[in-house]
Amino acid sequence: MSLLVQKFGGTSVGSVERIEAVADKLAKFHAEGHQLVVVLSAMSGETNRLIGLAKQIQDHPTPRELDVLVATGEQVTIALLAMALHKRGIDARSYTGAQVRILTDSAFNKARIEQIDSEPMMADLKAGRIVVVAGFQGVDEQGNITTLGRGGSDTTGVALAAALKADECQIYTDVDGVYTTDPRVVPEARRLDRITFEEMLEMASLGSKVLQIRSVEFAGKYNVPLRVLSSFVDGPGTLISLEDDSAMEKPVISGIAFTRDEAKLTIRGVPDTPGVASRILGPVSEANIEVDVIVQNIGADQTTDLTFTVQKAEMQKAADVLERVAGELGASQVLKDDKVAKVSIVGVGMRSHAGVAAKMFAALAAHNINIQLITTSEIKISVVIEEKFMELAVRGLHEAFELDKTDALASH
Amino acid sequence: MSLLVQKFGGTSVGSVERIEAVADKLAKFHAEGHQLVVVLSAMSGETNRLIGLAKQIQDHPTPRELDVLVATGEQVTIALLAMALHKRGIDARSYTGAQVRILTDSAFNKARIEQIDSEPMMADLKAGRIVVVAGFQGVDEQGNITTLGRGGSDTTGVALAAALKADECQIYTDVDGVYTTDPRVVPEARRLDRITFEEMLEMASLGSKVLQIRSVEFAGKYNVPLRVLSSFVDGPGTLISLEDDSAMEKPVISGIAFTRDEAKLTIRGVPDTPGVASRILGPVSEANIEVDVIVQNIGADQTTDLTFTVQKAEMQKAADVLERVAGELGASQVLKDDKVAKVSIVGVGMRSHAGVAAKMFAALAAHNINIQLITTSEIKISVVIEEKFMELAVRGLHEAFELDKTDALASH
Repeated sequence: MSLLVQKFGGTSVGSVERIEAVADKLAKFHAEGHQLVVVLSAMSGETNRLIGLAKQIQDHPTPRELDVLVATGEQVTIALLAMALHKRGIDARSYTGAQVRILTDSAFNKARIEQIDSEPMMADLKAGRIVVVAGFQGVDEQGNITTLGRGGSDTTGVALAAALKADECQIYTDVDGVYTTDPRVVPEARRLDRITFEEMLEMASLGSKVLQIRSVEFAGKYNVPLRVLSSFVDGPGTLISLEDDSAMEKPVISGIAFTRDEAKLTIRGVPDTPGVASRILGPVSEANIEVDVIVQNIGADQTTDLTFTVQKAEMQKAADVLERVAGELGASQVLKDDKVAKVSIVGVGMRSHAGVAAKMFAALAAHNINIQLITTSEIKISVVIEEKFMELAVRGLHEAFELDKTDALASH
Repeated sequence: MSLLVQKFGGTSVGSVERIEAVADKLAKFHAEGHQLVVVLSAMSGETNRLIGLAKQIQDHPTPRELDVLVATGEQVTIALLAMALHKRGIDARSYTGAQVRILTDSAFNKARIEQIDSEPMMADLKAGRIVVVAGFQGVDEQGNITTLGRGGSDTTGVALAAALKADECQIYTDVDGVYTTDPRVVPEARRLDRITFEEMLEMASLGSKVLQIRSVEFAGKYNVPLRVLSSFVDGPGTLISLEDDSAMEKPVISGIAFTRDEAKLTIRGVPDTPGVASRILGPVSEANIEVDVIVQNIGADQTTDLTFTVQKAEMQKAADVLERVAGELGASQVLKDDKVAKVSIVGVGMRSHAGVAAKMFAALAAHNINIQLITTSEIKISVVIEEKFMELAVRGLHEAFELDKTDALASH
């Protein structure tokens, strides 16, 4: 018997029929003796409908009132699910964020959870009830309704699991787990049984939009085992947890992430003096442009080249800033390129294995793919390549690291 | 400068455009220096939509969860109205029933208000804010969301006005006041400037569905002046208050109410012994049939006849009970008739005027309308007549008592 926090997203509760299906699933777990706290999103489309009403009135709706408005979305689904459980003879009780006292700061629309009082929920669980909680919302010290920002229901789930010391926080989605890479690009992509919090963060930030990054960070911080499962297909999903030291051998890399959302900018022939990087990137940051990869190389003649990537939509804005900076610094040239893609291999195993980078570069070379940029971190190696080679690179790397193999112990 | 509680119903906030129109109206009152507490219903149709979702799951939805569900309706409108006020540069803040702490008992779906904490609202008013409160809902001691039952937003308005010692509680509806009778039946029907709580209760219970009866009782009990106005047309509406002793002369009757919703049942030839009425009506009441008019006459040969009216839909059920009772009591006959109508004249003025009943009966006789039953109270005389004469009777009485005249001092 476990205490489980189970979170169902908007698609999973998108209609009365789907809510009934969730109730069936919960009835099964309940019959098996598990203690259940269920976190729900609003019905899919409902939050957007409510925001649409608000925007008919104000282009930028008052944040406090927007939270009052959109918090109704989850309040509807928790009541309906509680009814569906009652219909099945299961005692259940619904709670809004305010009722279960998910105390947050007062940053309307993007509040952060500060404290949760777990006692009333524990009392319900002990009485045999399923506790149904509205995700995405809370209440501040003054009693104002707050929301955690979009997708925040995952965070509610993790926070409740931490407060209740749950055995697992299970996130039900429309995919059946985390994959070695996107199966639309690599048909051989394989569902991972386990992945670490760190790996998941690297995968998530690179485009595997399975979970909210914030909820993964939160789960890692409080060491809440997180499991991604499908609402629609039975299966074990993927467990996201601390590194499993008990495993004798770990796969060197767990997955391949990629994105074609970025563009590359280079400023060439900058006189190489101390502080030159900040004099280039300072104005970019002041223009509110987010920078991802940054690479600096020493060039010829006491000059240096600096390259970085930004979101494609911001390339021209960044180029304008660079042109101005280039004039001030006496740089020779500004180059921009939005026909690029970034491909990364991620895995905690690479910490202890030499030769991973070499193997990656060899795999790309075998397909005649030229590497434009390289950056590395403890558990990730990223390359920027020409966009048209992206799928080829991902497939080649997936094969080279034998990610389609169940025990994925390549390069041993 | 007055402190006003203004309640707007579902039609008045039925779309974003209408909410904007309400905001325009409030902006005007605010600019005139009034302190405003606004009570809103859900958008028209929304409560039914939510109940429809619940009924897809449970024929009889769990009362607690139904309240969690339907309470979202008003939460949407209060947020949208607060936004519309902000857009007009007016400081405003929305509150759910739980937030403004409208404390009720725990009778879900039909809770009664026990207490309201007026201090936070007064603080908002002093700070120049418009306070926007969700009608129809509250919270019990345990923090559960409750609702007051349908139409309960009027009650919220009156309760807030009482707690805040407001100068007036103004109920905005789709009619511009209380009329002497239904203008669809009598085109000469006239809007009343004033009417007493008692008169309004008699009018309301007889079919003038302008206000919830409960809110009028509540207003009378706490002496909250209540005003019915149109959301869509400017005008003074009708003030419902205590009897105005300052008026030298009062109209004898204020209005004519009528209904064709009732059926008449008679049990004849019942041996006239003490307690016979209760032995007849006891079983009717036990069958959960509501009885309206009751008339008993002494018949011939130590027997009595008893007649009463019930809702038409319950006539057969009541007749079945009566047949059984008739057998037990040795009554001679049970009659039923659903082709009847009840017409009533209402007015506090009739207390001090003899001859009102005689005048009423004469007016009906002048149109050859036979009276089947008569009942009287302090401020009301009702007759039951054949249904097909209903309109004729109402028009004849309206004319006889000169209700179309502005000062309506007929029969002096």
